[in-house]
Amino acid sequence: MKLSNSFFYTLRENAKDEDSISSNLLVRAGMIKKSSNGVYMIMPMGKKVLAKIEDIVREEMDSHHAQELLMPALIPEDVYVASGRRESFGDNMFSLKDRYQKKYVLGPTHEELFAAAAMMDGKSYKDFPYNLYQIQTKYRDETRPRYGLIRVREFIMKDAYTFDIDEAGLDVAYDNMYDAYCKIFDRLGLNYKIVRADTGLMGGLLSEEYQAISSIGEDTVVGCEGCDFSSNLEITEVVDTTQPEEGEELELETILTPNAGTIEEVSEFLNQDPSTFLKTLIYMADDKPVAFLIPGDRDLNETKASKLLKATNLEMASADVVEKVTHAKVGFAGPVGLEIPVYADRQVLKKKNFTVGANKTDHHHIHVNLKDFDIAEVADLCQVRPGDICPKCGKPLTFDHGIEVGNLFKLGTKYSKAMGLNYLDANNQLQPVWMGSYGIGLERCMAAVADQYNDEHGLKWPENIAPFKAALVIVSMKDEKQKEAALELYEYAKEKGYDVLLDDRTERPGVKFKDMELIGIPHRITFGKGVSEGKAEYVLRSTSEKQEVALEDLKSLLDQIYTK
Amino acid sequence: MKLSNSFFYTLRENAKDEDSISSNLLVRAGMIKKSSNGVYMIMPMGKKVLAKIEDIVREEMDSHHAQELLMPALIPEDVYVASGRRESFGDNMFSLKDRYQKKYVLGPTHEELFAAAAMMDGKSYKDFPYNLYQIQTKYRDETRPRYGLIRVREFIMKDAYTFDIDEAGLDVAYDNMYDAYCKIFDRLGLNYKIVRADTGLMGGLLSEEYQAISSIGEDTVVGCEGCDFSSNLEITEVVDTTQPEEGEELELETILTPNAGTIEEVSEFLNQDPSTFLKTLIYMADDKPVAFLIPGDRDLNETKASKLLKATNLEMASADVVEKVTHAKVGFAGPVGLEIPVYADRQVLKKKNFTVGANKTDHHHIHVNLKDFDIAEVADLCQVRPGDICPKCGKPLTFDHGIEVGNLFKLGTKYSKAMGLNYLDANNQLQPVWMGSYGIGLERCMAAVADQYNDEHGLKWPENIAPFKAALVIVSMKDEKQKEAALELYEYAKEKGYDVLLDDRTERPGVKFKDMELIGIPHRITFGKGVSEGKAEYVLRSTSEKQEVALEDLKSLLDQIYTK
Repeated sequence: MKLSNSFFYTLRENAKDEDSISSNLLVRAGMIKKSSNGVYMIMPMGKKVLAKIEDIVREEMDSHHAQELLMPALIPEDVYVASGRRESFGDNMFSLKDRYQKKYVLGPTHEELFAAAAMMDGKSYKDFPYNLYQIQTKYRDETRPRYGLIRVREFIMKDAYTFDIDEAGLDVAYDNMYDAYCKIFDRLGLNYKIVRADTGLMGGLLSEEYQAISSIGEDTVVGCEGCDFSSNLEITEVVDTTQPEEGEELELETILTPNAGTIEEVSEFLNQDPSTFLKTLIYMADDKPVAFLIPGDRDLNETKASKLLKATNLEMASADVVEKVTHAKVGFAGPVGLEIPVYADRQVLKKKNFTVGANKTDHHHIHVNLKDFDIAEVADLCQVRPGDICPKCGKPLTFDHGIEVGNLFKLGTKYSKAMGLNYLDANNQLQPVWMGSYGIGLERCMAAVADQYNDEHGLKWPENIAPFKAALVIVSMKDEKQKEAALELYEYAKEKGYDVLLDDRTERPGVKFKDMELIGIPHRITFGKGVSEGKAEYVLRSTSEKQEVALEDLKSLLDQIYTK
Repeated sequence: MKLSNSFFYTLRENAKDEDSISSNLLVRAGMIKKSSNGVYMIMPMGKKVLAKIEDIVREEMDSHHAQELLMPALIPEDVYVASGRRESFGDNMFSLKDRYQKKYVLGPTHEELFAAAAMMDGKSYKDFPYNLYQIQTKYRDETRPRYGLIRVREFIMKDAYTFDIDEAGLDVAYDNMYDAYCKIFDRLGLNYKIVRADTGLMGGLLSEEYQAISSIGEDTVVGCEGCDFSSNLEITEVVDTTQPEEGEELELETILTPNAGTIEEVSEFLNQDPSTFLKTLIYMADDKPVAFLIPGDRDLNETKASKLLKATNLEMASADVVEKVTHAKVGFAGPVGLEIPVYADRQVLKKKNFTVGANKTDHHHIHVNLKDFDIAEVADLCQVRPGDICPKCGKPLTFDHGIEVGNLFKLGTKYSKAMGLNYLDANNQLQPVWMGSYGIGLERCMAAVADQYNDEHGLKWPENIAPFKAALVIVSMKDEKQKEAALELYEYAKEKGYDVLLDDRTERPGVKFKDMELIGIPHRITFGKGVSEGKAEYVLRSTSEKQEVALEDLKSLLDQIYTK
């Protein structure tokens, strides 16, 4: 592509409304442009990157025996009502009515529609297994879109769905997709970890996530210093290494703790270590108030708590509810005498003579013991934290931030049962189909790579997905020899089908070099003063390494770049 | 692809809710599946066709110097309010609110957003021209979706937009797209005509349409027996060949015509030829009542009428309005004494002593002449019809039905002025950019080809866009020799990168042949009993021509099929 007769721009300044280094670089490189909150235009230079990502994804899906189709985004609301997900998606789903007042939603993910697509009368077990996928635009009305393409409201997803007659078949299909995803993310050049995760909104038996490691990652990826353990923070088990406390159980006392409603305030007031406190947290689980009792120096893990209660919605109770339930101001909740179910973290069982709120404003109980209250159920309810040990090998855990670029779900028969997707087994009996679902966010991959590959001068795309692998830069458009040498190489590249970028603009060389660095072209060949001595300059974006190359060697240099 | 381990189905019965031969064939061939009213799933076999159409479109756009980008479908409503098109699209646009009650629409076409994308501070005339396009999903809330993929509510469009500094530049850009479109539709194998058309909702200076000729076409394409004239019915001029009537102007008379409210009834009642009548049609033009006066044996052309009045909305007045305006029941409107503006077709000027409604229930005027009423404006207002002559050469016009598969618009400066898209000219003065817009409906192309290429056995895809060029059919899966011969050829094809379909299902041969015919594979190689004698059967779908081919010649046959 010749820049002189193309639509091309870069920006010198960061955007006012971008909140990360990589999103600013993508905007400044003319790759993306914000259209509205969480909605972007992918500009021509960015489309080249996205198309290469799409090609890699499609190649790997096809070579892993997945068949491509294309679903609509406009879906009757009924479809999600039938599966029970209309409610669980709630406001995250865009909804609308057509001219006849029929209700539709914009699909956030397509389990239901793929189940409908696969539905055929009298489909026999012999017709299985199969794997269907699409590369299609999804819509989610995110509360707080951010980080450029990382959290957006309209985005392209590769979503695949597998259909098997039993769990063993699903396992094979799942492993096949696991392998495809590793190949995809390897080819994209991403530094990623695969972690066990919560099945969440999807439901099902198992979920794993591909997390691109990044400082702006919104997920916490837990790993291990000693082994290959890895897991999303949400579901990582806290290994309970605490010892049962020694000593006598003392008698419960109620003491005045005026205006001390937080652990910090009470521990200062009583001059006690926070670990002697238990926190009592009041939550609403699907509109029912419940209490969680955990060590004072720990955080509740809401995913674990939701799972324990099988709750669709779990959120902290409002001050009103807390006051109603505890008969006290917020800050003084405790398990003793509480009339709602109390769920306790398992570390609680080893505690003695602890301090809790007294369910009375400005009062706490001290010397509380397990005999003083009822526990509905005990479970692992806390978030892991630095210092905790690996559930697999006992070495210290590590913590990274990750961007979820892909996920795998063993759905089991949840959707096939909801939608009535069955097959006839060898005995002519109807059986539910076993499904898996597998997603990759394409723009998010682009953003994650941009986030991992950049420096103070701009983007540094890996060769596989760079908008162009090589740029030819003419230093002075007034110098016929420079132009001639560059154009000769450009024509050679065109002939060979190498997609090179020719910077033949009448701009200062500094501007051209800066632009090529900003948009992150891996290889730059510069035609400057050296041309009169038969030489060009070759610069590698990744290392800034420079090299003089004889003009007659440039063709074989290009061959090397484009065919390796 | 091996059918035995793929998702594949065909249907023996037509769908209950499909209203055309081609949409039924596409459904039965497992290429499309209705998701909701006017919204389809493109199933794997159909996706292969659609992908090939997309590739052809992309190749031609790229080789005609257009640059691809990608716009969102979710667009703030403001954007269309700014251009004045929110109102003109009306209910045809899907609209919705996000979780914060901000109004959005689903883009029906992207002139506004491309103008926004192209907007840069201080863009110089030196940065022009350029051509940007996308292949992206559009939404239109059609009143009555029909004919399978022909008129749908969600569809993929290739839309391109050109940006130039003056009209001469726009002309060049337009001609370039004209050429690209001819190449695209030629490669798709479509039988099409290029016709002048109304600029309609887009506005602008010129529009041409690519109309695929088809009996289910909703447009009427007017051509000429004698020359290359072609035009959409909507804008074709009626050449007025009528002679001024001879004779005296008689005195107006009012006569009783009980219950005779239609031309047919009155002409029977009065025993007069319909050509002696003038029809007075009451319309609402943007909420203002107007009358059109045309010959009794002609139809009003609403496009011409809208244009004359520069009306955004023109529709027949309701019975209430007609009665209020004419003080009579519907069927008795006439120009004499009418208090709303009367627009007359130019043929009216040659009439004498004609019959019209009397604006009085059950009464008509006869012997009416031009002196008896006022005319606001005279224009060509009628629809052309068989028997009319070519405006260019005078030979008889021809009439075909057409499916609009593509269109070209010279927009001029309409959108750039509305959106403030300017450039700095050589004198550093701001000037509006000249835009063009160019669309192709991808699914509609697929449907139009299906409509032109089929027979009683199914689809007959042209080679360029067939899901597979060739199918290898094994007659008996129990015959090891047949299997071996077919698999050897299949492996050869895979090696060469030829995408062939291997029908290795354990089905009766009749089922396999019928399926291959239904899905329209151009070349079929059958491995049957002849294999034991070293022969296979080769059948051409287009002509049903059969031929015996020696097994050793099959590889070169495939080479011919795939490389020609």
